[in-house]
Parts: sequence; structure tokens; C-alpha cells
Amino acid sequence: MAKGLFITLEGSEGAGKSTQIEVICSYLKNKGRKVICVREPGGTPIAEDIRALLKTPRNDDSMCDTTELLLMYAARAQLVNCFIKPKLSEGFDIICDRHDLSTIAYQGGGRGMNMDHINAVRNIVLGDFRPDLTFLLDIDPEEGMKRARRRGDLDRFEQSKMDFFIRVRNTYIRCAQEDPEHIVLIDGAQPLDVVSANVISCLDKFNV
Amino acid sequence: MAKGLFITLEGSEGAGKSTQIEVICSYLKNKGRKVICVREPGGTPIAEDIRALLKTPRNDDSMCDTTELLLMYAARAQLVNCFIKPKLSEGFDIICDRHDLSTIAYQGGGRGMNMDHINAVRNIVLGDFRPDLTFLLDIDPEEGMKRARRRGDLDRFEQSKMDFFIRVRNTYIRCAQEDPEHIVLIDGAQPLDVVSANVISCLDKFNV
Repeated sequence: MAKGLFITLEGSEGAGKSTQIEVICSYLKNKGRKVICVREPGGTPIAEDIRALLKTPRNDDSMCDTTELLLMYAARAQLVNCFIKPKLSEGFDIICDRHDLSTIAYQGGGRGMNMDHINAVRNIVLGDFRPDLTFLLDIDPEEGMKRARRRGDLDRFEQSKMDFFIRVRNTYIRCAQEDPEHIVLIDGAQPLDVVSANVISCLDKFNV
Repeated sequence: MAKGLFITLEGSEGAGKSTQIEVICSYLKNKGRKVICVREPGGTPIAEDIRALLKTPRNDDSMCDTTELLLMYAARAQLVNCFIKPKLSEGFDIICDRHDLSTIAYQGGGRGMNMDHINAVRNIVLGDFRPDLTFLLDIDPEEGMKRARRRGDLDRFEQSKMDFFIRVRNTYIRCAQEDPEHIVLIDGAQPLDVVSANVISCLDKFNV
């Protein structure tokens, strides 16, 4: 059986990932493919519990950067090993809301953590496992946070200061520039139908 | 102000760590020292939440080894960075129920995980931070599990098979043989007062 495709969506808060996940899901299903959508951190019961630990703001303890990094990769290890890899082998396409590039952007760029440390943990968890295709939806952080605020209460990451989000965005863009073959950079500030058309055009070229 | 001592207790289930922690705590307090007892995984609100994730048996998801390793070190990073190091600097002695040697024994020896991977994560989390003194209470796993069962319901680790605990014990003993200067191996099957006398004699020699 042919292995499924692993497609990831990346971008700052409010960039429009959820909408484009629906677009990609419909596109693939219309081609007769079996599709599963998951999110990171999360996607399995254990990984969802880790997500709650990572996302929930709390007053009784302040999470250190290394703890945050290791919790992210603990959730990723669980999802990739126990769910994504087996499902890809069964021929399912997996669309994932955030994946490893988020850690490079948020913990590496945003928090300024040592990239050698991040790469060492990434190597333990992922080896050479990589998405077939990544869509990076780019949005000005001020505009993105306006959209995120309209959705409701902000989580622990969304409560960060604006300069954090600017570093996240710059890291995302640099990664896309360094690996244009795998990371498709799309301007998320465009009208919704234009963003969707960009995504579909890219999937057409990918010859799914 | 003089830095406090960092003393860790190690050993399989039912080896008698809790009792000896009380012995050490009393000994140090009688010397007029300020003492704090903590446990791993745990010891801060976030690390205790991670402990619950690690320890609680569940039927909805099976934790993969890499997730377990990263959760252990996520909890350790939080405890060491946010609590142990600052308290040692304030002059407190810290007595810790389990620490890094547990990961070597359980995830390295018990689970058979790649030691290069464990060392890579350990280096990120701990750098060259090490206990001043470690007591390893050795017990035959069959006897230890009898004692653990008398305490009540078994946690996720305690539900492992006997050959797991034999590998854990052998790894503990090998580590103690390799580093006798820092790891004191004590026969936990001896009568309680003999074990306590061994521990106190060692603390006397350490010239606290």
C-alpha cells in the first residue's frame, strides 16, 4: 500500500491555519484519499494532557524554557511514534496543525534557546522523519493577535509580548527561505479566497 | 553563604528510601542545618503534574519510551532550575527521593533505551550539575515488590514485569561500582537499624 502524505501547517497565532487545514482536507478527500487531521502539541490522549500543561496559564509555577522544550518533544514523540507513522503506513494522509517547525520558531526564535540543544532533542525524537510538505502562513503579529483575541481567552503562549512574536515570525520566514523545496511561504494577510487558491495551486503542483 | 548539600536517595521499589530520607533529614537538622526534602519526578506544581502523567496507569494510550524519557527530564529541569539550585544557593540542604540515576537505571537499564540519547538530554538539562552524595539502597526485586504491594495500588512503573526490575537493579549496581566516590551502595535487605547505621556512618565520614 502506498504511504500517505504528511502535510503540516505552520504560522503565528491568527495566521489562518485552521481554515486552510479544511481546504487541504477537502482537496485530498475529493481526490479519493483517506485523510486524518491532527494538531500539535496533542493528537493522542497523553499528548493532549501534555498540551494542557503547556498551554494553560498558571500562577503557582513558572515553566522554565528547557521544561517547555522537552514537553513539546514528549508530546511530538508520542504523536509521531504512536499515531502518525502507523497511519501513514496504512495509507492515510495526515494533515498536522503545527509540527517541528513551530519548535524552531517558538522555542528557538521566540525564546532564544540554544539551537544545538533543540537539534539534539529533535534528532532523538524524529531522526530523519520530516513532512512531505509544509505550508507557512505568514501574518504580521499585530494583525494575527487581533484575530486570536477575537477567538477568546489567550493561552500561555498567546499571552507573550509582541517582540516574542516578531522573533517567531522572523525565524519562520528564515526557515522557509532556507528550505523552499519543502516549506511554502504564503501571505496570510491576503483575502481568504486568495490564500486558499495559493494553497490549492501548490497542491496541484505537488501532483497529489 | 555556604552552598547547601545535594543528597539523593536511589533504589528500586520497596528498597526503603523514604525511611532513610527521614534518617538523613533528622541527622542534618541535628547539626543545625536547614533541610528540604523533595521527590522526583515532582517537587514543583508543574513537575508534580508531569509526575501524575508518568505514574498513572491508563487504558486510553500507551506511553512510548521516548515520551517517558522526555517527561522525566522535563520534570527534572523544572525542579532543578526553579527550586533545587536556588535553594542550594540560599544554603539549604536538599534531600531528593530519586534523581538522575533513576533515569539511567529505569529508562537506560530497564527500558534498554539508547544511552547516547539519555546522555544528550541529561547534558541539556543538567550540564555538570551532580549530587554531592547518592545513597543507593539495594534490594532483591522480588522482596522490594512485596514491600511495594503492601503499600497499596501499584503505579505504572510498579506494574512492570520482574525482568524489568532485575535490569534496573543491575544497572544501579554497575553505576555504583563505577563511581564509588559519589554513590554509596547499601544493602537494603538488612534490618532497618543496620541500614540506618550504615547511612549515618557515611554521613559522619562525609563530615557534614
